[in-house]
Amino acid sequence: MCVIGAGLIGGSLLRAAEKAGRAVWGTSASQDTAAQARADGFDVTTDTDAALHRAAAADALVVLAVPLPALPDVLHRVDAVAPTCQLTDAVSVKVAVADTVARFAPRARYVGGHPMAGTAESGWAAGHAGLFADAAWVVVADDGLDLQVWADVAELAWACGARVVPAAADEHDLAVARVSHLPHLLAAVLATVGAASEDELALALAASSFADGTRVAGTRPELVLAMCEGNHDALLAAVDDALGRLGVLRGALASTGGLAATVRAGHAGRQRWAATRDPQGVHVRLTGAAPLAALRDIGRRGDAVVGWTD
Amino acid sequence: MCVIGAGLIGGSLLRAAEKAGRAVWGTSASQDTAAQARADGFDVTTDTDAALHRAAAADALVVLAVPLPALPDVLHRVDAVAPTCQLTDAVSVKVAVADTVARFAPRARYVGGHPMAGTAESGWAAGHAGLFADAAWVVVADDGLDLQVWADVAELAWACGARVVPAAADEHDLAVARVSHLPHLLAAVLATVGAASEDELALALAASSFADGTRVAGTRPELVLAMCEGNHDALLAAVDDALGRLGVLRGALASTGGLAATVRAGHAGRQRWAATRDPQGVHVRLTGAAPLAALRDIGRRGDAVVGWTD
Repeated sequence: MCVIGAGLIGGSLLRAAEKAGRAVWGTSASQDTAAQARADGFDVTTDTDAALHRAAAADALVVLAVPLPALPDVLHRVDAVAPTCQLTDAVSVKVAVADTVARFAPRARYVGGHPMAGTAESGWAAGHAGLFADAAWVVVADDGLDLQVWADVAELAWACGARVVPAAADEHDLAVARVSHLPHLLAAVLATVGAASEDELALALAASSFADGTRVAGTRPELVLAMCEGNHDALLAAVDDALGRLGVLRGALASTGGLAATVRAGHAGRQRWAATRDPQGVHVRLTGAAPLAALRDIGRRGDAVVGWTD
Repeated sequence: MCVIGAGLIGGSLLRAAEKAGRAVWGTSASQDTAAQARADGFDVTTDTDAALHRAAAADALVVLAVPLPALPDVLHRVDAVAPTCQLTDAVSVKVAVADTVARFAPRARYVGGHPMAGTAESGWAAGHAGLFADAAWVVVADDGLDLQVWADVAELAWACGARVVPAAADEHDLAVARVSHLPHLLAAVLATVGAASEDELALALAASSFADGTRVAGTRPELVLAMCEGNHDALLAAVDDALGRLGVLRGALASTGGLAATVRAGHAGRQRWAATRDPQGVHVRLTGAAPLAALRDIGRRGDAVVGWTD
């Protein structure tokens, strides 16, 4: 298995896959990162072509673990050196990556992935083998993709301790816009409103509700921008939904002074989320008339794939 | 000292003040609560008039620790039994309480207070003596109030382990609208948007950014409504600020696709908040030409009063 990129995600993948007993090698665009990884005993080079040649020879899975803007250059090398490789990725949006793969490495056997783990940290040193333990790992289940590659990506996720959530690429993007990207924008708005006074009274009085509501505003802006701007269309819909609900709330507060509808709906939503914290693990087989449609239904139910049916 | 109400806040006040060596008694409207408190060794009755008679005889400080809607009835008894008592409160809005006191117990020597501590729990059993340790305790410093009562309330806060943040009542309400009430409304909006899909995919994928951003949406709706609706005017201004910023963000996303201004402002706001976490403790004396104006300036600087100048 060949991992392109050795930052937080790529570096954690290298560690987790090696710990699971897999043959794994990687690349980094940074001499420093590659040297750090080698010092820790990992087979990481800056020579992307050499790593991809090796993947082509072994028909190994290639995992793209670089930010969205770096993908075209990497995919150009994939198409030149390992054009029909098994390919997946760990980028947080899925439609944009699929479009980029279709454009720059159209012969690759691509199945998109998104391990939903991460911290505010970044870089090789922040990675660790346990990063994906008990995390959801979305594996795209759009019609027409290669079932053998799907199975390989699922087994990689399980080897890393994650559970597999199958989803259509566009449904993934709409979902993460609502539950991952919108939280970053609302946190930014809240932090800005809290800090809007010239004096320090409001910030001095800000306690746990403000601390929790703005925590992700502490993330490096570059990471937030890459993530949110890469999911433009789905995020716009989520922002419009939030704007509409905030406008309704504003109207109710200004007219009747009552906020019950807003507060009760939020409470119900939070409880519905809490009820999803222990997903049912199901076993599947990739056969039947429409195996990918069946997989997508599992994700829509909030369940997760944890192994193969005997 | 006489505490009216023995829920989370009143019950914690009784425990903290007794632990600090003060003579303290209280009342509860609930037979069950009063019995629980007595079983734990506290002098708590359901006979509000008797408790207030005792306060009048001893010129003891009376602390209102009941929700805003319960205040008129309690203040009616104060005016009948202990009309000129030293009076403070622990309610989370300050202009509305001052107006209610002025209407129902106009002779009381009132100085508003707001200990900024609490949990999602409520009731006598949830209280504990350490609830106010290291918390900010706003003591209203509007012109015209009784400096002796101000000093007594400050000493109560210190006895409970809190630091005193002096503020004008209206400035307090604007501040908590931004950093305490708005977070509850944005959490409700986020939880509602996250749960808006018919299928469970989005909630299943919701991880730490959603968990933190919606945490306070798990609070009992009645508590959130009492707090937010009681701060109507200030909250409306905070909601309008958030709406405006979210609208600007929406426009930027739809036109240029860029979110840098929003994300960077949020990051800066969060950092500015983090820098206020270790407030400077100052010592004061309640003399000079305008001691209350000097106190308000301390709060506006983000500092806190921790004792008297020798």
